[in-house]
Amino acid sequence: MIPLPPEGELATQRIGDLTTEAGAVIHDVEIAYQRWGEFSGDPHGRNNLIVVEHALTGDSNVADWWGDLIGPGAPLDTDRFCVLCTNVLGGCSGSTGPSSEHPDGGVWGSRFPAISIRDQVRAEATFLEALGINSMHAVIGGSMGGARALEWTLMYPDWANYSCVIAVSARASAWQIGIQTAQISAIVRDPDWQGGDYYGTSSSPDAGLAAARRIAHLTYRGEQEIDERFGTMAQPGENPLGTHRGEHQRFAVQSYLDHQGEQLVKRFDAGSYVTITESLSRHDIGRGRGGLNRALAQINVPTMVVGVDTDILYPFHQQEHLSRNIGNLLAMNKIVSPVGHDAFLVETRQMGHILRNFIALADQTPSATDLAKQRGNYEI
Amino acid sequence: MIPLPPEGELATQRIGDLTTEAGAVIHDVEIAYQRWGEFSGDPHGRNNLIVVEHALTGDSNVADWWGDLIGPGAPLDTDRFCVLCTNVLGGCSGSTGPSSEHPDGGVWGSRFPAISIRDQVRAEATFLEALGINSMHAVIGGSMGGARALEWTLMYPDWANYSCVIAVSARASAWQIGIQTAQISAIVRDPDWQGGDYYGTSSSPDAGLAAARRIAHLTYRGEQEIDERFGTMAQPGENPLGTHRGEHQRFAVQSYLDHQGEQLVKRFDAGSYVTITESLSRHDIGRGRGGLNRALAQINVPTMVVGVDTDILYPFHQQEHLSRNIGNLLAMNKIVSPVGHDAFLVETRQMGHILRNFIALADQTPSATDLAKQRGNYEI
Repeated sequence: MIPLPPEGELATQRIGDLTTEAGAVIHDVEIAYQRWGEFSGDPHGRNNLIVVEHALTGDSNVADWWGDLIGPGAPLDTDRFCVLCTNVLGGCSGSTGPSSEHPDGGVWGSRFPAISIRDQVRAEATFLEALGINSMHAVIGGSMGGARALEWTLMYPDWANYSCVIAVSARASAWQIGIQTAQISAIVRDPDWQGGDYYGTSSSPDAGLAAARRIAHLTYRGEQEIDERFGTMAQPGENPLGTHRGEHQRFAVQSYLDHQGEQLVKRFDAGSYVTITESLSRHDIGRGRGGLNRALAQINVPTMVVGVDTDILYPFHQQEHLSRNIGNLLAMNKIVSPVGHDAFLVETRQMGHILRNFIALADQTPSATDLAKQRGNYEI
Repeated sequence: MIPLPPEGELATQRIGDLTTEAGAVIHDVEIAYQRWGEFSGDPHGRNNLIVVEHALTGDSNVADWWGDLIGPGAPLDTDRFCVLCTNVLGGCSGSTGPSSEHPDGGVWGSRFPAISIRDQVRAEATFLEALGINSMHAVIGGSMGGARALEWTLMYPDWANYSCVIAVSARASAWQIGIQTAQISAIVRDPDWQGGDYYGTSSSPDAGLAAARRIAHLTYRGEQEIDERFGTMAQPGENPLGTHRGEHQRFAVQSYLDHQGEQLVKRFDAGSYVTITESLSRHDIGRGRGGLNRALAQINVPTMVVGVDTDILYPFHQQEHLSRNIGNLLAMNKIVSPVGHDAFLVETRQMGHILRNFIALADQTPSATDLAKQRGNYEI
């Protein structure tokens, strides 16, 4: 019997010390999580667990950010599956991150090490083991969540029977690293950043974090969608065409981006933003595995790849690259939308079809473990 | 006889006070310029003048930034044409801008008003009139230069016989405004900006300007080109995968972008950058002309439109929009390149073909003035 918290309730689990890929130690790590639906089956074999991985500034509350896609009868059907989502290592929604207390006192702050996507997945596997689980039906994730889902198939090839990898690439592109480091720079150049040790002081790098978010948001949204919404319209009551440029004389799109920045500042920690953004720049499934395509060829977990036609952050050719090279491709799907990268969060109808299709295909397709058993060479 | 400076030499011309579109006055404006090839023909009618318009951080030295495209026998053949390029109003390469002396003393700084593309074109027309010219064979420009070339066809429809509009749109898109205001924000958030009045102080917003340029550069270059060059490579001698993020432990692409920022800081003024970037956000040929497509339909100057297939700043659909709606389309050309927006500066071979084609088509095509004369309704 797996000791899971009540449905939808945020819980935390200690998983001990974690040594990062780069060799730093994060002491006494806690992982926050939520689950929906009852767990059934073998915690070490066939079971009904679906692990959903959230994106950069997401959290474990899938029922919020993917609300229409999870629940009784929904594409991720909680009458059938136990859907579980953790807050990522380095985050600020319950799991250990830069804003967490350090065992030696104070807050981690600048002492919190740089982490990779692999560190995040290792923390999650250790967390599941702490619950007594080392097997799951599927792992699903979009954007940074997709990077984690992909690493799951390589780091723990016997755990997930199926995976669904959405709007991500096999590694960070140079353009992504460029735009991500520009965001980090916007935060660390804010004098209130204080070298990353602003916790407990009277100021925090809100302006820097908002600036980073404004840049990021322009990579999350399709330029045609933003243009159709705002064009060159002025923000009501403001005049962006006056004799002098004015901070409060804005185009409507400026106000929209300012709002995005303000909203993030309210709910997210700048230190976590820097840490998790950095982990995306380190995303490279080829590292230590003989390069990208050798790594992809090693993937035996039947994997569905999903992309968005207008994504400028993770352009569709990156998902085409994944689908051409993954060792065991379950299917390839394209979300068609003006929205860009965020379409996997916004185009609920299409995403619902895709997830139902994923579940159905998985039902019809032997997992790598099934195949190995059929061949009689599977060792427990 | 038009009094032009020696070939290639930077000269300046006073044009008096200029009232901006928004109603501010810039006193005692000077426009810097260079020319190549001898002027011939009628300064008020048929002549051999080609005005080339530079992009955001360009200058009047076309022989430098379009070096292979201008000269004796080159696509812009200075044996045949007199090629002239001004430094844009608001710039920092000789024309009046925020870093220029104010007639009341000191430097313009924050007193320098916001300007539009139309203000830039009006300054240029006034400048040409000061030289005794109000007619030209062609106006050609890319990016912000393309925005000016387009405005020329509408503000002064009788001046240019032909125009070539490259890698630009009929108006700023919301995405462009978003990314441009993000750059302005990076500069004005730099404490050394000092409200725009840093001139004569011991500090200038170099870090902010470099940050702006890093963001901008990622919109000038195709993501596949940047990725093919840098991928996830480390900068030699640095380790971007260490235990902690370090300012001097960079990916190669970070170093590349840092270099772009440093180079711009050496040659460009932050105040001019803010002013000219703002003018791009105000670019809208539909303003006061009944909307975009009515304005485009009014264009009688035979106009060639050129776009780049991989441009993310001015995506190709924007040039398709221009070409579908311009009243007198001379031709539509596409530069095919992984480079993105900057391809019009970098893909010299393709750009050379396009400019030769432009000149040849113009030779075969009656100008709007020719047609009016043929119809006998042209009034001098």
